[in-house]
Amino acid sequence: MATRHTTQILTRLRSLMKDTSVVTEAIQAYIIPSGDAHQSEYIADSDQRRAFVSGFTGSAGTAVITETEACLWTDGRYFNQAEKQLDSNWTLMKEGIPTTPTQGAWLAKTLPAGSKVGVDPRLFSKDQWTPLSKTLKSSGHTLVSVERNIVDVIWDEKPSRPSHVIQPLEIKYTGKSWQDKVKDVVKEMEAKNCSLLLLTALDDIAWLLNLRGTDIQYNPVFFSWLLVKMNGEIHLFVDPSKVTSAVKQHLNLEADIEMKEHTSSPTTDTVLAVLHPYEDVDGFLAAEVSQQPKKVWISDKSAVAFSNLVPEELLCGDVSPVVFMKAIKNPVEMAGMENAHIKDAAALCCFFAWLEKEVESQRTVTEISAADKLAEFRAEQIDFVGLSFDTISSSGSNAAIIHYKPSPETDRTITNREIYLCDSGGQYKDGTTDVTRTVHFGVPTHFERQCFTRVLKGQTNLATCLFPSKIKGNVLDVLARKALWDVGLDYLHGTSHGVGHYLCVHEGPMGISWRVYPDDPGLSENMVLSNEPGFYQDGEFGIRIENLVKIVPANPENNFKDRKFCTFENLTFVPIQKKMIITEMLTKEEVAYIDQYHTQCRDKVAPLLQRMDKKEALDWLMRETEPLG
Amino acid sequence: MATRHTTQILTRLRSLMKDTSVVTEAIQAYIIPSGDAHQSEYIADSDQRRAFVSGFTGSAGTAVITETEACLWTDGRYFNQAEKQLDSNWTLMKEGIPTTPTQGAWLAKTLPAGSKVGVDPRLFSKDQWTPLSKTLKSSGHTLVSVERNIVDVIWDEKPSRPSHVIQPLEIKYTGKSWQDKVKDVVKEMEAKNCSLLLLTALDDIAWLLNLRGTDIQYNPVFFSWLLVKMNGEIHLFVDPSKVTSAVKQHLNLEADIEMKEHTSSPTTDTVLAVLHPYEDVDGFLAAEVSQQPKKVWISDKSAVAFSNLVPEELLCGDVSPVVFMKAIKNPVEMAGMENAHIKDAAALCCFFAWLEKEVESQRTVTEISAADKLAEFRAEQIDFVGLSFDTISSSGSNAAIIHYKPSPETDRTITNREIYLCDSGGQYKDGTTDVTRTVHFGVPTHFERQCFTRVLKGQTNLATCLFPSKIKGNVLDVLARKALWDVGLDYLHGTSHGVGHYLCVHEGPMGISWRVYPDDPGLSENMVLSNEPGFYQDGEFGIRIENLVKIVPANPENNFKDRKFCTFENLTFVPIQKKMIITEMLTKEEVAYIDQYHTQCRDKVAPLLQRMDKKEALDWLMRETEPLG
Repeated sequence: MATRHTTQILTRLRSLMKDTSVVTEAIQAYIIPSGDAHQSEYIADSDQRRAFVSGFTGSAGTAVITETEACLWTDGRYFNQAEKQLDSNWTLMKEGIPTTPTQGAWLAKTLPAGSKVGVDPRLFSKDQWTPLSKTLKSSGHTLVSVERNIVDVIWDEKPSRPSHVIQPLEIKYTGKSWQDKVKDVVKEMEAKNCSLLLLTALDDIAWLLNLRGTDIQYNPVFFSWLLVKMNGEIHLFVDPSKVTSAVKQHLNLEADIEMKEHTSSPTTDTVLAVLHPYEDVDGFLAAEVSQQPKKVWISDKSAVAFSNLVPEELLCGDVSPVVFMKAIKNPVEMAGMENAHIKDAAALCCFFAWLEKEVESQRTVTEISAADKLAEFRAEQIDFVGLSFDTISSSGSNAAIIHYKPSPETDRTITNREIYLCDSGGQYKDGTTDVTRTVHFGVPTHFERQCFTRVLKGQTNLATCLFPSKIKGNVLDVLARKALWDVGLDYLHGTSHGVGHYLCVHEGPMGISWRVYPDDPGLSENMVLSNEPGFYQDGEFGIRIENLVKIVPANPENNFKDRKFCTFENLTFVPIQKKMIITEMLTKEEVAYIDQYHTQCRDKVAPLLQRMDKKEALDWLMRETEPLG
Repeated sequence: MATRHTTQILTRLRSLMKDTSVVTEAIQAYIIPSGDAHQSEYIADSDQRRAFVSGFTGSAGTAVITETEACLWTDGRYFNQAEKQLDSNWTLMKEGIPTTPTQGAWLAKTLPAGSKVGVDPRLFSKDQWTPLSKTLKSSGHTLVSVERNIVDVIWDEKPSRPSHVIQPLEIKYTGKSWQDKVKDVVKEMEAKNCSLLLLTALDDIAWLLNLRGTDIQYNPVFFSWLLVKMNGEIHLFVDPSKVTSAVKQHLNLEADIEMKEHTSSPTTDTVLAVLHPYEDVDGFLAAEVSQQPKKVWISDKSAVAFSNLVPEELLCGDVSPVVFMKAIKNPVEMAGMENAHIKDAAALCCFFAWLEKEVESQRTVTEISAADKLAEFRAEQIDFVGLSFDTISSSGSNAAIIHYKPSPETDRTITNREIYLCDSGGQYKDGTTDVTRTVHFGVPTHFERQCFTRVLKGQTNLATCLFPSKIKGNVLDVLARKALWDVGLDYLHGTSHGVGHYLCVHEGPMGISWRVYPDDPGLSENMVLSNEPGFYQDGEFGIRIENLVKIVPANPENNFKDRKFCTFENLTFVPIQKKMIITEMLTKEEVAYIDQYHTQCRDKVAPLLQRMDKKEALDWLMRETEPLG
């Protein structure tokens, strides 16, 4: 792709980088991060600045523009996609490859002496700012805040920020009132000697307040900021048009969006909500900071623009307490997750039974039409709200693009001649799902089956392992890779991410990867994670097998030093295609595990398919869950 | 142990903590680290301050004394030993247990508001100082340098610093001249834009200069500092009495220990050595710093007292380049390591054959007399210099003390009624060894055999794994633990450490542990590491199986993304006792591996035993290396 559709954009940006009517001082480089002012992974169209500038639309990636160069850093999930989408103005920097420099190292080396590197302080977290600033400083350069976003200046048809209405989520789904959650947060604040806490992550706010929105596609969150005071007072900064009377009732608000006057000061037993316009957060925060008897808690993951409002010695930059609370699902949330997964499995049984028949009958189904049909099956389920991410419906060589999204230009027909990989998920009011299955409707090659079997061995090895509770997730990563490494294969993505409860499908703070998750509190009972090793042969095929799992106590015969051993239990119950498995490559324990898994699929999903009168899907499920060999 | 033999010491220290004739300002807490001014892990008697104060003699541990409390932090290897050695004035803080606070967190919480915490800046590295200082500051306390070491003030019979003579190590052992090594270092300095490098780690200096000493027991190093200038000039700060004429010749010095006058400035092709007294380093460094055209490289692992001599913007705190150079053994060093291990295996065959006979004949052999005999067998080998650490000769419950050292009070007789664990190593001019074998001369219990077999499965799992080169060592740790975790067992120490070439038996920067080694450059060809999982049943028995291994290319059938897969190859060739193995618990691949390992033991060690006419040892070797089952 030698076209240079970004030439004009880059020219305009480079001109603004020197225009002191826009930037306070000329900058020699400008960083365009992926996220929004809430450091969201998935973002609204109005925040797609990096995609607008570079053409690369993946969910992770950072653009850096200097006077002469334009570079895009992204990770292994997106190498193929980025290579396709970037034009020749751009250099792809492959993260995770040992020879790829970090942005700081590259800038330090590339820039002329004494350069200034600009970034929008709303889009850059403090923990991004601090090390980069240090690296640049030690090379004689300076990282500077550019208050006005220069991409927004040249983005002529920039969409406006979405402002959809918010919905309360009933306690039958959440298991705990928002008032009780706020009280727990206040306890954490006391433990850290903090009298004020700013929450900026949209899923933190949605979870804490038992509210859901639709501002960001697939992520049921809404644009807002939240300040929690030690007296239990919460200040929600949100566009008034989003706040319905149901929300006002849920938050025990009278009627008015204006700041209330409090006649009596609330005790720690009462929790009081106050609404403010979204834009008022900086001013209100700045005024509050000056009055705090204790510290101000603003996570270093929040925009550095906020941390900058607090004197360093007053600032607590620890990870938001809500991050750890929502990672441990309560019994109601976990029961909801289990129920959502059974409904989701039923939809997938309907889909694969249908798809198999269509392909056999040589009716044309493409990646896009298949994804649409799958969405229809999901929509038949109770409490279905929408998808949890863009369905990765990918056939043949498209399946080697790890985060592929079919487009009209790339849309392949699904045939019996190549592997079909489908990674999809749903948002239900009772839970979020994420599942990948890889199938072949004809005759897979021996190499494809070998790779599939090794991916499955890794998935099984991780699913069945016991581990002392509280070990960090990265410790387990190799279990999922070993069978691939044994023959010189690997996959360039992590093995596992946390998953929210009717929230973001990628939820921290833990995960399982060769990389360490810096805020991982240790794997603990009632966390929900994915288990998704894969293998990708560029230009040919891709394989991924993904279940969501929950962490449960294992109770083995010993309990060394009272370490409390845990294991995983599957939440996802969709058959794994036996045709792809070379049974002789499995140990007898692995065969037993897969047979037992398939029995569980039957036991859990068949009753729902019967109730829904889905005969074809039920037949498919029974056939696909026959024992191996 | 309810005695309080440290009461007087603590009283005197607490009095000095307030005595402004000794400390410049009163301090409320004093930290006594384990290391010396070179941040050595193993230290001379003159540096055993923490042991003098606390009574705990393990190789790792930090004492913290406040006005009312005395705490000792150490890791899982030493919990049992510390519990035995600490008197009731002391609280043991178990590192690695999730509920144990860090020193900073504990101090922050325990101290009265606005406290000062003192530390000797020679004994504290910059990377220890920076985070602790930050933690204390954020709690309103201050970390302060106390120039005069207050332990030294009260240590009435403190031994003096050793000052033994230094020996050059010939190029037939080192494989590279010190001049060529210095040239490599200068290249690294150029790459970092540094014109001056201070080396403070004793093994860095010994390796770089191809010199060895005996100042620290078991570690062939000598007290010194080294400054490298970008013109290839090196300044060695060392007690003149250590420098023999052989060393002067080796370093191309004329005769005098005084600073030379250089009439011609050396080119980068020449390398020139200059000697100075050990104590002159601060003054010389301070004077040099003021003249540098580029940056000054002092690793953050060096004493903060040195970093403090350099303005922050001039300082490069990266890990010393010598750390990475010496981790990759050159062909001569590796051949030496291999040869040393065959000699060492021969000594161990002699030892175990002898010990088995002694125990069978019911002659009294104790842990200490066994260790002495083993040292005699090692001393029979060519180029043997000494032991590489205190032999852990441990029987029955003593074997559960991970870093046990037998003393007259604990010395058990070795019998056929309990497990005997022997962890030992030698220093040879051609290499360093470290090996652990666990044996039973009678009938082990079923649980002991189960545990042994699981430890062996873990050891085998790690030994045989393939991995992409440059992955960090921590990624592999779980492979050695999985078989134990499967039944709720574990061990509270790392799985692997790097090993020097006729240098320290614990050598960084890599290792394999559940913890991340922060400076691990990634596992690479020609590194040497240990592979030593274990299991310890407190009060009953201990098991550890340890081989040293080298990293070699694996060349599997695929080479995904040119990742260059590697594997381990054993350097240690000492039979593993078959009596302890429950063969039915092994896979057929594991049985094949162990049989093949035993064949290698025969092939490599038998010829040497034959040449040495060690008939009993040879018979023992042949019997112990029969195939399993």
